Amino acid sequence: MVIAFIGLGNMGAPMARHLLKAGHALAVHDLNMAAVDGLVAEGARRCGSPAEAATDAELVLTMLPASAHVEKVLAGDQGVLSAIQAGVPIVDCSTIDPATVRRLAQLARAQGNDLVDAPVSGGTGGAVAGTLTFMVGASDNLFAKIQPVLQHMGRRIVHCGDVGNGQVAKICNNLVLGISMIAVSEAMALGVNQGIDAKVLADIINASSGRCWSSDTYNPYPGIIETVPASKGYQGGFGVDLMLKDLGLAAEAARQSRHPLPMGALAQQLYQVWSLQGKGHLDFSSIIQLLSRADAT
Amino acid sequence: MVIAFIGLGNMGAPMARHLLKAGHALAVHDLNMAAVDGLVAEGARRCGSPAEAATDAELVLTMLPASAHVEKVLAGDQGVLSAIQAGVPIVDCSTIDPATVRRLAQLARAQGNDLVDAPVSGGTGGAVAGTLTFMVGASDNLFAKIQPVLQHMGRRIVHCGDVGNGQVAKICNNLVLGISMIAVSEAMALGVNQGIDAKVLADIINASSGRCWSSDTYNPYPGIIETVPASKGYQGGFGVDLMLKDLGLAAEAARQSRHPLPMGALAQQLYQVWSLQGKGHLDFSSIIQLLSRADAT
Amino acid sequence: MVIAFIGLGNMGAPMARHLLKAGHALAVHDLNMAAVDGLVAEGARRCGSPAEAATDAELVLTMLPASAHVEKVLAGDQGVLSAIQAGVPIVDCSTIDPATVRRLAQLARAQGNDLVDAPVSGGTGGAVAGTLTFMVGASDNLFAKIQPVLQHMGRRIVHCGDVGNGQVAKICNNLVLGISMIAVSEAMALGVNQGIDAKVLADIINASSGRCWSSDTYNPYPGIIETVPASKGYQGGFGVDLMLKDLGLAAEAARQSRHPLPMGALAQQLYQVWSLQGKGHLDFSSIIQLLSRADAT
Amino acid sequence: MVIAFIGLGNMGAPMARHLLKAGHALAVHDLNMAAVDGLVAEGARRCGSPAEAATDAELVLTMLPASAHVEKVLAGDQGVLSAIQAGVPIVDCSTIDPATVRRLAQLARAQGNDLVDAPVSGGTGGAVAGTLTFMVGASDNLFAKIQPVLQHMGRRIVHCGDVGNGQVAKICNNLVLGISMIAVSEAMALGVNQGIDAKVLADIINASSGRCWSSDTYNPYPGIIETVPASKGYQGGFGVDLMLKDLGLAAEAARQSRHPLPMGALAQQLYQVWSLQGKGHLDFSSIIQLLSRADAT
Repeated sequence: MVIAFIGLGNMGAPMARHLLKAGHALAVHDLNMAAVDGLVAEGARRCGSPAEAATDAELVLTMLPASAHVEKVLAGDQGVLSAIQAGVPIVDCSTIDPATVRRLAQLARAQGNDLVDAPVSGGTGGAVAGTLTFMVGASDNLFAKIQPVLQHMGRRIVHCGDVGNGQVAKICNNLVLGISMIAVSEAMALGVNQGIDAKVLADIINASSGRCWSSDTYNPYPGIIETVPASKGYQGGFGVDLMLKDLGLAAEAARQSRHPLPMGALAQQLYQVWSLQGKGHLDFSSIIQLLSRADAT
Repeated sequence: MVIAFIGLGNMGAPMARHLLKAGHALAVHDLNMAAVDGLVAEGARRCGSPAEAATDAELVLTMLPASAHVEKVLAGDQGVLSAIQAGVPIVDCSTIDPATVRRLAQLARAQGNDLVDAPVSGGTGGAVAGTLTFMVGASDNLFAKIQPVLQHMGRRIVHCGDVGNGQVAKICNNLVLGISMIAVSEAMALGVNQGIDAKVLADIINASSGRCWSSDTYNPYPGIIETVPASKGYQGGFGVDLMLKDLGLAAEAARQSRHPLPMGALAQQLYQVWSLQGKGHLDFSSIIQLLSRADAT
Repeated sequence: MVIAFIGLGNMGAPMARHLLKAGHALAVHDLNMAAVDGLVAEGARRCGSPAEAATDAELVLTMLPASAHVEKVLAGDQGVLSAIQAGVPIVDCSTIDPATVRRLAQLARAQGNDLVDAPVSGGTGGAVAGTLTFMVGASDNLFAKIQPVLQHMGRRIVHCGDVGNGQVAKICNNLVLGISMIAVSEAMALGVNQGIDAKVLADIINASSGRCWSSDTYNPYPGIIETVPASKGYQGGFGVDLMLKDLGLAAEAARQSRHPLPMGALAQQLYQVWSLQGKGHLDFSSIIQLLSRADAT
Repeated sequence: MVIAFIGLGNMGAPMARHLLKAGHALAVHDLNMAAVDGLVAEGARRCGSPAEAATDAELVLTMLPASAHVEKVLAGDQGVLSAIQAGVPIVDCSTIDPATVRRLAQLARAQGNDLVDAPVSGGTGGAVAGTLTFMVGASDNLFAKIQPVLQHMGRRIVHCGDVGNGQVAKICNNLVLGISMIAVSEAMALGVNQGIDAKVLADIINASSGRCWSSDTYNPYPGIIETVPASKGYQGGFGVDLMLKDLGLAAEAARQSRHPLPMGALAQQLYQVWSLQGKGHLDFSSIIQLLSRADAT
């Protein structure tokens, strides 16, 4: 299949590579020439604009940093919508706000194209390994059509309902994640400070009603789980600034729909304080250090 | 074994009953005569004071509402410590602050008695069914000695380390629980409002990094899990006011040890707002209603 | 002077009326025909589009609900910028985010027009009475030029620095206001609950370091100050939903500039909870009722 | 008049000195002998216990760090109540929780003594200068009787109602203060970051509805007001840890009376985070640094 792939950053480049390996013909575009060079060397075709990439594509994939980029790549001058053939689906894998997705989907629909949102989780590690989770907002028909393509890049392809719901699912999951990581951080730091052994405490929580992914799979206290960032100086993993972006999307969606999000808002502010202290690049579980005495963790 | 049991409330009475059934001789005391009557009819011996109950006991068990009661029952006039024989252990099953436990343990130790804290989770249902979880703070020896007794009343007897650590474990677990219930409430309410189906969203979270007991076992959104309070008008379960008490203990412990607990403090305040609106008796998962449009849940 | 006035809502209509009375020639536009009719009857000229109003104007004034409206009225099809003569200043009195103001100012500048932001405080009462406060972002020259026009509509015309700073000043002031109103509410409700007389407490705060406008001029406790909404069932005044809008702008500006705003974010969420309970139209000082026992206030 | 003065710390010693200078006979007691030496050298009589100091006193004054100390000095072994003559009033100038004050007042009343709470504001500077503010909880008669004594040590002697209300007034005022200082910090930091001049912004807030003591008298942004700690590296003033103590008292009072205090609770947590970072000794207005980019302030 001829696939246009637009956006070859840390996530996009390895994703595109999986499609090439699977035998698809790739027309690629990115403002960063170096990123394009790599894929061209592996067989992709270089395109000077989103429009050029989309012209003869049978499927368009985009993977971009934020709403403004998606808006420009799809609806701007020399954008995808100015050149794409009717009936060709567009799959946006960026994490952006559901309202923008739905507005762009209407625009695309008006000229005969379907837009699908398919944000991912799994990070750059998952992108390289081809083990991403895709949360997909699409009609049943469309989901059936694009699922085989996404499976080259991911392990779980989850159908979340109609367009926009992929974003909603991702935002809501990460909202719970961002909050519960701080919850576990507060509990571990307080508990150790009050005299309980960290491993004993983690075991009790993991077998009780406080059990959660942030406790049993990604515990922020150093040494509880050997393989997670908490045990490796909070290097790697999912950065504080990425969590901040997702909590910001949740806050913005809540504001637009006049919905309270008190814990989400406070979590966002605490990660922002931590980022301000120069920790934005650390794994988000490092937030435990904002809440602990230096000698505790 | 001759066991003194002091405090026969909604939790204490069924717990004492299990010990009677197991063949222990019970000397019981409570200010509420009606509660005592029931157990006396089943074979327990009525005592006019904690001291009287403790005089010839081989083990003393207490199950009381708050620190002040425990302090009075143990160290007050006609209290346990005024009559107990040296070497007899005292097991306090109340949920109170770790600092008070440790202070009373020192007092007891000074006259040759060990104090063990063994707060429970599982609610009145678990007390009646004998399926409570006990979180025990005691030396290894002492734990081995009292474990068989506790097993008449509970299913899981968890050793949390030395005296006080039972309270620490319970407080820390419920801190995570109280926060993550609000996290899931915010996510479910926002997601449904943004157009995703509640069951689809819960399934996605439960298979992702937002997974937690509050989502996969006790989801606050009505109809996701048929057996939980959320699907039965938030009746029964673990009351808002009980969650408030535990978060208050966490806040107080944190204040004393000069430890920040921002999410815990906010969770406490939100449950307090909800309680003020007359909802203190509802299951704590009803907090989702404070954060939802009336037509959403 | 020939002035184009676009946006004739509850605020805009009385503002435009003051300019008419002062002898200016007004070209007015609004999508709401009824609002236009009133001013036409008093001598204004009806225009079918922002462009038509702007064509021969010597000054353009806009007063609109949100960023999207300002963007459309200035830069959209038939917008002001498509017809305005070079050198004519545009004064936007809407309350919107500083980033949008500055982006539109660049656009205007590129074709030879200056954009000034001049958001107001004082509400519909101030608009009708001509006693608004204008917070103006403009160069010194431009400020000198437009000040006399604004003085027909307001009492205080404050120069806040360059374009965008009018919005920044308004957002920052209302951020403090929205937080301190809740602070005073918490203190008054707690104090009365703890046994102190409300008037005595207010007097003490007003003479101490807790002194603030929310306490000494607009106290949320009923009966402290006879003339404020708190003493009139929280009718009139500055609505919860308007405060929510301004705190939302502060939150959004903070998010964009990666700045923590923990108290502002929590204040926003508390007003959002209150609005969700159907209180969005009440004066924002009614937030005290969310934090009080029914019998306390 | 023969006055017993118990508690000669940084605040108590200079307060006692003012009474000596005014011609009163002082019987002093403190566990810190060095503190006692100083006053003895100036004419006070050294006493080995609170009881000894109280024996022939016509008035007892206490100035102690926390509830536990007051409890011990009044009601403990060799405490004031064991030796004081009937009818002699006790004035406690400590800042403690209202519930403890009222409980001790009942105890004193039972043996014929009145307890008055009279916490102060003004810091060690005010204690040395004799310009403290006293917030007094006492009957009208009693207030009239002790006012002349307090006037030797303070400038404003405020009658807040019956016993306990002095504490309530102080706690409530400092609750508003602690919150509004963070509100102003957020607004100043955000505003400067968004491009407005700090002095211009402060002037606008001070003339608008955001006006408060934290903005117009004690602005946390460096250089706005030359004489405050913010302009002197946050040295001196009212320490973060002292603010933490007062917010802790407010939180505890609110918890006991089942009253929500969301903004107060969050303020407490933010000061706690800041204290944890080693800033507990700085003036509380230094909290702005937790919320600012390093280059902003």
